[in-house]
Amino acid sequence: MSAESFQASGIVTLLTDFGLSDPYVGVMKGVMLSAEPQLELVDLTHGVPPQAVAVGAWHLQQSWARFPKGTVHLVVVDPGVGSERRILLAEQAGHLFLAPDNGVLDPALDESATVLVLDVERFALPGASRTFHGRDVFSPAAAALAAGLAPGEAGVATTDWVRLELPVPEVGEDGAIHAAVLYADRFGNLVTMVEARALDVAATWTVQVGEESMPLVGTYADVEVGELLALVGSGGTVEVSLRDGDAAARLGAEAGAAVVLRPGA
Amino acid sequence: MSAESFQASGIVTLLTDFGLSDPYVGVMKGVMLSAEPQLELVDLTHGVPPQAVAVGAWHLQQSWARFPKGTVHLVVVDPGVGSERRILLAEQAGHLFLAPDNGVLDPALDESATVLVLDVERFALPGASRTFHGRDVFSPAAAALAAGLAPGEAGVATTDWVRLELPVPEVGEDGAIHAAVLYADRFGNLVTMVEARALDVAATWTVQVGEESMPLVGTYADVEVGELLALVGSGGTVEVSLRDGDAAARLGAEAGAAVVLRPGA
Amino acid sequence: MSAESFQASGIVTLLTDFGLSDPYVGVMKGVMLSAEPQLELVDLTHGVPPQAVAVGAWHLQQSWARFPKGTVHLVVVDPGVGSERRILLAEQAGHLFLAPDNGVLDPALDESATVLVLDVERFALPGASRTFHGRDVFSPAAAALAAGLAPGEAGVATTDWVRLELPVPEVGEDGAIHAAVLYADRFGNLVTMVEARALDVAATWTVQVGEESMPLVGTYADVEVGELLALVGSGGTVEVSLRDGDAAARLGAEAGAAVVLRPGA
Repeated sequence: MSAESFQASGIVTLLTDFGLSDPYVGVMKGVMLSAEPQLELVDLTHGVPPQAVAVGAWHLQQSWARFPKGTVHLVVVDPGVGSERRILLAEQAGHLFLAPDNGVLDPALDESATVLVLDVERFALPGASRTFHGRDVFSPAAAALAAGLAPGEAGVATTDWVRLELPVPEVGEDGAIHAAVLYADRFGNLVTMVEARALDVAATWTVQVGEESMPLVGTYADVEVGELLALVGSGGTVEVSLRDGDAAARLGAEAGAAVVLRPGA
Repeated sequence: MSAESFQASGIVTLLTDFGLSDPYVGVMKGVMLSAEPQLELVDLTHGVPPQAVAVGAWHLQQSWARFPKGTVHLVVVDPGVGSERRILLAEQAGHLFLAPDNGVLDPALDESATVLVLDVERFALPGASRTFHGRDVFSPAAAALAAGLAPGEAGVATTDWVRLELPVPEVGEDGAIHAAVLYADRFGNLVTMVEARALDVAATWTVQVGEESMPLVGTYADVEVGELLALVGSGGTVEVSLRDGDAAARLGAEAGAAVVLRPGA
Repeated sequence: MSAESFQASGIVTLLTDFGLSDPYVGVMKGVMLSAEPQLELVDLTHGVPPQAVAVGAWHLQQSWARFPKGTVHLVVVDPGVGSERRILLAEQAGHLFLAPDNGVLDPALDESATVLVLDVERFALPGASRTFHGRDVFSPAAAALAAGLAPGEAGVATTDWVRLELPVPEVGEDGAIHAAVLYADRFGNLVTMVEARALDVAATWTVQVGEESMPLVGTYADVEVGELLALVGSGGTVEVSLRDGDAAARLGAEAGAAVVLRPGA
């Protein structure tokens, strides 16, 4: 496929919206280990909100390159399971990706990626269900690829897959950046898609969520305990936080809430 | 023991009601790795509701055969810990099972199973607690068995263990099937024990929960987003769902809620 | 360093307040596996309440010795991330510990420990963030140490680190023990710091939380289903429980609630 061809390391990451309160993830691991007992299975996260394709896409885009080359990334945020939606297999920078063709994969890919439509029939377990392709299709395919099956043998090349534009902030005439909360993380940090480089046009910024304003600072300790702040988070985009507290709870804000950044203190 | 005797693969699955917010599961893994560092430990789930033996039994029954032969399945849903309840060791189809004798194991077993009462004294750690046998008894036993200890040396055969009948749906004179919700999964799907083969007597079914009725369909995409549906889920039984939503929340239903299936549209 | 010097086993435990709903933990594993693909990564827990240094300290103190010698324990409960707080590397009884210098490590250490200040510059990834040192500093350091880097090469010895006194119960003139709830576990058990040996002065004890009184017993089955009890839990301290139920919910009690133990029935 690509110039930097895939050499399987035996590592498979799992990124789903299945949560951990049911055995869904455990069963997927059982299927993979039944096929290839020597695989190393690593949970990326299973906490994507149910059916939240954009959140899954963001997590994948932020995370995949932290793993070694040779990793297979298995992504199952799949509200269309059992319908005619296709399954994609992509190769990029020495990594493989398996995901439903619903946009969850697209933001992680660059122009170097090669993309195939998975040959589902080749991998589906006998008696495959229509509701749990994570177990019945994705896991057998991931196990085979992580054990060394040539990706080119697993499907047919395509250039026609579902694109997903993560919500891009808009810059107003006054230089203000209008963004939205993509999701709140475990700490109540409100994550936006405003990238650090968009902030270079001013030395200082004031961030507004609802009625509250807060400064853009370098890290949590730059404000007092219990105060609101904004900073460039570990994903390289602006997050709204509460020092030693939960900004989402304090602000009553959740995914979709408006966040406005204005130049100046 | 059985004709198909157990050959340890080194894989241990863990199925508990311990959750993941405390170090209970991590400590069990530490005990096992201290005894046998090369074991491969796989979480089946730790999200069984506290003390919910029937839910744990269902998860085990649905899941164990997805793992390779040679796996030890460690099941700790154990409200009787510290009392006189026994610990069972079962062998079936090349798998081993360790579980308290409270019914959690029984639905997974068929007539080919051989069952022993574990010799607790042999495995208990020095100073074993009366509240955490998962750490102090189950983990040392699982590690020894997963590392190759012959199961027959770990206990004494029995045919007298606690049976558990999962709640069987009843069929009325009018052909209606009366069932109950066993549990709601992470997506809010309401899982029943109505098996697919019970549905063969009619071509179409209407499912009722409380005041709401919905069709039995093939998969989520067979109804519009936001509509209720029922389908045969990945465990082979009827589930009530909401497309791209949470049926449990919509219906205000939880474990024990009545579900009625009636032939016809 | 210490007389019992560290021999890396390749096992790394992870103890954080990151939860599992985001990819933070998965990404840390990716960074470690990118550096050292053969490591064995074990989650101790990621359910420490956000910024709850004392709870993290208690979990670590209770858990670390359950793992084999040669383990690296990676502890990231780090509200001071991005500030001038230091990172500690400790060696004790053949184990290594990496943690922010905020007290989370201190209760686990005894007089045999040797402690260093980590050379952060040596391990920090290029472009390290100011908000996620778990990924950018702790993980690279843990991977190197778990793969065999001599601890003495990773930092400079110190005897000056942040001490943390976990809340000690007080004994009144009447022999009553006044304690507080450190945290509620997944089952709603209210965990205190009253150690078993403090109870030897009387044969029987009555425990009070708010308006409710309950006996100190040996295990859950010593009271009827639905009754309150206290017992010495698996960590060796007194816990308040509800048989087959959730004491925290029943009592409306949470971290900090007063627990009083009085000699006599």
